[in-house]
Amino acid sequence: MRSDPALARLSLNQRTTAEWTLREAIDGTLAAGLSSIGLWREPVADVGLEVAAKWIAESGLRVSSLCRGGFFTVSEPAARAAAHADNLTAIDEAATLGARTLVLVPGGLPPGDTDLAGARARAAEAIAELVPHARSRGVTLGIEPMHPIFAADRGVVSTLRQALDIAEDFDPSDVGVVVDTYHLWWEPSVEDQIARAGDRIVSYQVCDWITPLPADTLLGRGMMGDGHIDFPTFTSAVAAAGYTGDIEVEIFNADIWATPGDEVLARMSQRYLELIAPFL
Amino acid sequence: MRSDPALARLSLNQRTTAEWTLREAIDGTLAAGLSSIGLWREPVADVGLEVAAKWIAESGLRVSSLCRGGFFTVSEPAARAAAHADNLTAIDEAATLGARTLVLVPGGLPPGDTDLAGARARAAEAIAELVPHARSRGVTLGIEPMHPIFAADRGVVSTLRQALDIAEDFDPSDVGVVVDTYHLWWEPSVEDQIARAGDRIVSYQVCDWITPLPADTLLGRGMMGDGHIDFPTFTSAVAAAGYTGDIEVEIFNADIWATPGDEVLARMSQRYLELIAPFL
Repeated sequence: MRSDPALARLSLNQRTTAEWTLREAIDGTLAAGLSSIGLWREPVADVGLEVAAKWIAESGLRVSSLCRGGFFTVSEPAARAAAHADNLTAIDEAATLGARTLVLVPGGLPPGDTDLAGARARAAEAIAELVPHARSRGVTLGIEPMHPIFAADRGVVSTLRQALDIAEDFDPSDVGVVVDTYHLWWEPSVEDQIARAGDRIVSYQVCDWITPLPADTLLGRGMMGDGHIDFPTFTSAVAAAGYTGDIEVEIFNADIWATPGDEVLARMSQRYLELIAPFL
Repeated sequence: MRSDPALARLSLNQRTTAEWTLREAIDGTLAAGLSSIGLWREPVADVGLEVAAKWIAESGLRVSSLCRGGFFTVSEPAARAAAHADNLTAIDEAATLGARTLVLVPGGLPPGDTDLAGARARAAEAIAELVPHARSRGVTLGIEPMHPIFAADRGVVSTLRQALDIAEDFDPSDVGVVVDTYHLWWEPSVEDQIARAGDRIVSYQVCDWITPLPADTLLGRGMMGDGHIDFPTFTSAVAAAGYTGDIEVEIFNADIWATPGDEVLARMSQRYLELIAPFL
């Protein structure tokens, strides 16, 4: 299928079709008429970085982001060093794959540790330590604030306001923010924070907040339009902030994972055309 | 059992022993050596308001709060009028029971409605409409900011900062805030907001954030010390803000509900003495 101009900025985040290999995801993205893909490190590693980079280059697809670095809230020195080293590798992978942005998920509280302020401070320090290498490889670090449901075990940066408080210590070409509707839709005055973010927005990811939450809340994300998020208003704010990059659909959902990938891409393209593209 | 001075400010919120009738809860609270109870409207209604008020008066227990009013984010005029009328009744119940505070849970998005800003505005309007009656009955309205996990279906006020933005339009004797560790532990700079709240804190409720979340996330609250919350730091902030009222233990948890109530009160008293009382 040839690219559809109306879908020019739509990107498939690989987690939306988690059952697909990288090869299947590249082929499926092209078949759906899309021109961008958001990669994850694990399926890239499954085929090897060089093969993945070659496939991507041959496909002509843009890589809207690489997911993910981060998980650097640990306090024990050896674990911190290991996390730092892994993030240097992730930066290299992003550069090799042609991804401008490495998404950073900060990580949660270390086991048995209730010092949230300490974990947040370590996340900010870890980002600072990664900046020189990221800059040398031409990769922007994208801090992803995560819904507070994940504050204990996955992401201690909980609001866009907080992510910007960290990011603004750096040059915008070094450290930006990932704006994900699922994580941020509830944040009071989020439109003000999106405007504040401006050119620090390095990725716009979309999926819906659905209720009731499924038993595994990690998989509680829905297709745009199936839940409670006002995509037109949110998207208008992102566009008004000056964001001109790709829009990734990233959905963790067991039902969607059980659906054939081409059907998922058809549905997400349709919802994108209805709820997002008109407001860009 | 006679009251234990070290437990003087500890209050049993009835939801922690959800299987107990009001009579059982009053007797259990007294037997545990506590002097305060947080009531819920449903078990009060089960015996009738006048009987409940008589029992409470005879028991000598303080009523630390009445849960709950609110659920006034609906937009349809008849539904709004019904919510208003029900909240007037709740205010009367609080006054009759001797509760200084009526806890207000704002409610979520109306079905099919994604206008979160609109729902939040209606919540603030509904509070304003209740103030004259609350004042006339000597009841303070306590806005309860709820964890963003509930923003869609239960509480559109998601942070203490946001609750204070609403409350500060009113006199502190009319409208305050409920500070609940479970809902607020993750909020960036929450200590600053607690200090800002000062004498607007009308209730301090405690329970823990546990992981993994159970399948029914509404029941995902844990006993203090079983999860990720730093109670000493949080409690110190509440004390430093000048709060001198009761501390309610409010836990929604199926395992705790399946435990004999006297065991629950013994455990919560022990944890209170370890994690909270020393920091008041």
